[in-house]
Amino acid sequence: MQIAKVRGTVVGTQKDPSMRGVKLLLVQLVDEEGNSLPKYEVAADSVGAGVDEWVLVTCGSAARQIPGNEQRPLDAVIVAIIDTIHVEDRLIYGKKDQYR
Amino acid sequence: MQIAKVRGTVVGTQKDPSMRGVKLLLVQLVDEEGNSLPKYEVAADSVGAGVDEWVLVTCGSAARQIPGNEQRPLDAVIVAIIDTIHVEDRLIYGKKDQYR
Amino acid sequence: MQIAKVRGTVVGTQKDPSMRGVKLLLVQLVDEEGNSLPKYEVAADSVGAGVDEWVLVTCGSAARQIPGNEQRPLDAVIVAIIDTIHVEDRLIYGKKDQYR
Amino acid sequence: MQIAKVRGTVVGTQKDPSMRGVKLLLVQLVDEEGNSLPKYEVAADSVGAGVDEWVLVTCGSAARQIPGNEQRPLDAVIVAIIDTIHVEDRLIYGKKDQYR
Amino acid sequence: MQIAKVRGTVVGTQKDPSMRGVKLLLVQLVDEEGNSLPKYEVAADSVGAGVDEWVLVTCGSAARQIPGNEQRPLDAVIVAIIDTIHVEDRLIYGKKDQYR
Repeated sequence: MQIAKVRGTVVGTQKDPSMRGVKLLLVQLVDEEGNSLPKYEVAADSVGAGVDEWVLVTCGSAARQIPGNEQRPLDAVIVAIIDTIHVEDRLIYGKKDQYR
Repeated sequence: MQIAKVRGTVVGTQKDPSMRGVKLLLVQLVDEEGNSLPKYEVAADSVGAGVDEWVLVTCGSAARQIPGNEQRPLDAVIVAIIDTIHVEDRLIYGKKDQYR
Repeated sequence: MQIAKVRGTVVGTQKDPSMRGVKLLLVQLVDEEGNSLPKYEVAADSVGAGVDEWVLVTCGSAARQIPGNEQRPLDAVIVAIIDTIHVEDRLIYGKKDQYR
Repeated sequence: MQIAKVRGTVVGTQKDPSMRGVKLLLVQLVDEEGNSLPKYEVAADSVGAGVDEWVLVTCGSAARQIPGNEQRPLDAVIVAIIDTIHVEDRLIYGKKDQYR
Repeated sequence: MQIAKVRGTVVGTQKDPSMRGVKLLLVQLVDEEGNSLPKYEVAADSVGAGVDEWVLVTCGSAARQIPGNEQRPLDAVIVAIIDTIHVEDRLIYGKKDQYR
């Protein structure tokens, strides 16, 4: 999985019928320090992520393991909102409101 | 999924029989501002996309989730025509005739 | 799918038994103008492609959708010989003998 | 598979229910000499790997071959802790406590 | 598939049980002239390849098409030892002892 920041939304009305009801977020891939990488994904959101949150993105056939996505032509999905990243016991990232 | 602009068509008559009737579009991958990336895909069209439209492209086994494609050797498919892209609440892209 | 030019052949006799009878072609990936990209694939040929022809290459699990390949450890296959590529209504590529 | 060094952990509580109980490690991909590559993965740990250990990471649908992961939206998993790497009969890497 | 040279071996004893008995080779990807590319794979060997031999490597779910690998978390496997590579009718590579 890759770490990404949610940046926005992508909307399309003329689409494969199976894509109805899928919320698509534009996420920017980042390295483990949060520096933007020159890569993005348009990923289906299954966890209620919002702009600026750090999320985990899964790519490939795994995207269809989320209940409801089994028959959808998705190749990227957000599987978790990240609370903390520790590298060698240092806290690299902590979600401010992670305890709500 | 990746954002792409439709640029043209690819036609071949000598092909795997399962590829008959598949409309293949040449799409240029772009970043979220619409700047061309040095990557393209030849993707099966399932939504009636036309040249210059911005579309969402799905790659990998997900391409075979589109009804009719289940048995086809496809690794890229257009799953939606994009109407709008919002990044941090700014409208980055709006399809001109998105309301027709 | 990616556009590629057939450049040659790869032969190996000591191989997984399921690979017997598979014709393997070395194909160079090109951009939509035909400029060589620094990427190649060794792809199974299922359409009778020859050296210098432009072909469409499918990668990943889709390679096993070709009849006869279902059980083979293939991750790339030629699915069509390209006749024409149009970009924004210009003919970018035309196979010389496409009407034979 | 790729060689990687375990660098830390990633934790998220708001996630797809199937991700509960999955230990996610941040691993840095390295070349065969151990030089860091500008790539990382957040991989599910199935072998009890710890920080600084060299591990083997499998990506893609193979990640769901690990018992318990079959239905999880995972695209990367640690499948082994590396003991030794030999290149042309030289020992390139040896895990210090590999015999415990 | 990609062309690679076998460079060495990778051994790990603490691993997913399904990985027992799998011989893992470190292979360096090369271009069609044999020049090293900055990419390697740790691939399961199913054909008895040795150091310095040129091999064909298959990646992704295809790696599980090899008998015995169906349930293993593998994403790369050696499917053939290369005897010859011809590019535009020139012999680019010939395995010295290919007739033994």
